[in-house]
Amino acid sequence: MIKAFTDNLGDTVGVSSSQVRKDFSMLGISGNKRGGYVISELLNDLSGIIGSTHQEKIIVVGCGNIGRALIHYNGFRHDTFFVAAGFDIAAERINKEINATIPILLMEELENYIKDNKVRLAIIAVPDAVAHSTYENLIKYGIKGIVNFARVNLRDVAGVFVSNVNIELKIENLFYYLNFEEKNEKHEQQRI
Amino acid sequence: MIKAFTDNLGDTVGVSSSQVRKDFSMLGISGNKRGGYVISELLNDLSGIIGSTHQEKIIVVGCGNIGRALIHYNGFRHDTFFVAAGFDIAAERINKEINATIPILLMEELENYIKDNKVRLAIIAVPDAVAHSTYENLIKYGIKGIVNFARVNLRDVAGVFVSNVNIELKIENLFYYLNFEEKNEKHEQQRI
Repeated sequence: MIKAFTDNLGDTVGVSSSQVRKDFSMLGISGNKRGGYVISELLNDLSGIIGSTHQEKIIVVGCGNIGRALIHYNGFRHDTFFVAAGFDIAAERINKEINATIPILLMEELENYIKDNKVRLAIIAVPDAVAHSTYENLIKYGIKGIVNFARVNLRDVAGVFVSNVNIELKIENLFYYLNFEEKNEKHEQQRI
Repeated sequence: MIKAFTDNLGDTVGVSSSQVRKDFSMLGISGNKRGGYVISELLNDLSGIIGSTHQEKIIVVGCGNIGRALIHYNGFRHDTFFVAAGFDIAAERINKEINATIPILLMEELENYIKDNKVRLAIIAVPDAVAHSTYENLIKYGIKGIVNFARVNLRDVAGVFVSNVNIELKIENLFYYLNFEEKNEKHEQQRI
């Protein structure tokens, strides 16, 4: 019976152990009388909460550099979801070969694919200019969750959850912090 | 004298116009007497604050799928920064050709490159297992800002800013929200 402790769990994700206990308690996960959480039970409880009783199919819309990288990314653990297909408008990117691990299909097939495969989550990696129309189409076809890599801020609409990943903005934010800190250091030095 | 208004600015990024006014005022940016902000002045003020008086060189460490996608990504606007080089341990990924728009260099050259080019920001796209050691090396070589694509939570240390982009976690979070919402809907239906 291997156990996990909130100290270690918190350390790994960068929060305090009391935060871990609070979160677990809110989710109805209770610890072992003698301290710690039995790992197999914990995994079971968490799977039940996340709802990962089966592997979900997700899709990537837009197969440029970022889209293709996500399609071929080996880093996903694959226990709760996997990338099942990519979609693009460019005929030269289409790959329907049976041998292709993950097919890239034409955008025209998007609606039927989503409906036939009951896809709930899509990654948007299209050019900025068409991000919003892509978003609206995906919602119309039944998509409920979106990770957006376009530099356009897509907003949640009723029943649809959006996670915006604007890499450029993150980099610009970091430069802002760096410059702010450097300016302050210079001020400090002048004072001394 | 073309002007921008806080309504439109707020709309674009998804915040209220009063938030935009508050933020601008905190940064010492004042609007025009007759309402609105003169766009050319606003851009000037913002560039001064972000510190983008010159284009910063950033580097990508780890040139697998995600790393290479970022190196070849055309989406960055390039007015404040540009990807100057990639680094990898795999000899077959190295590309030092003069014609290569962005060279991929051996990891051994990382320290000198950072110092010679005064690089302040790096993107980590290495496998999870070596993310932490890569992070520590980058700090040692003088990097001050990091965007981390590995699924390891890297923490800020004094004077270093980290932005963690865990795509898998984002997807798992979205599934959690979706499942939570679906469960609630079922409960609602049972009550009716």
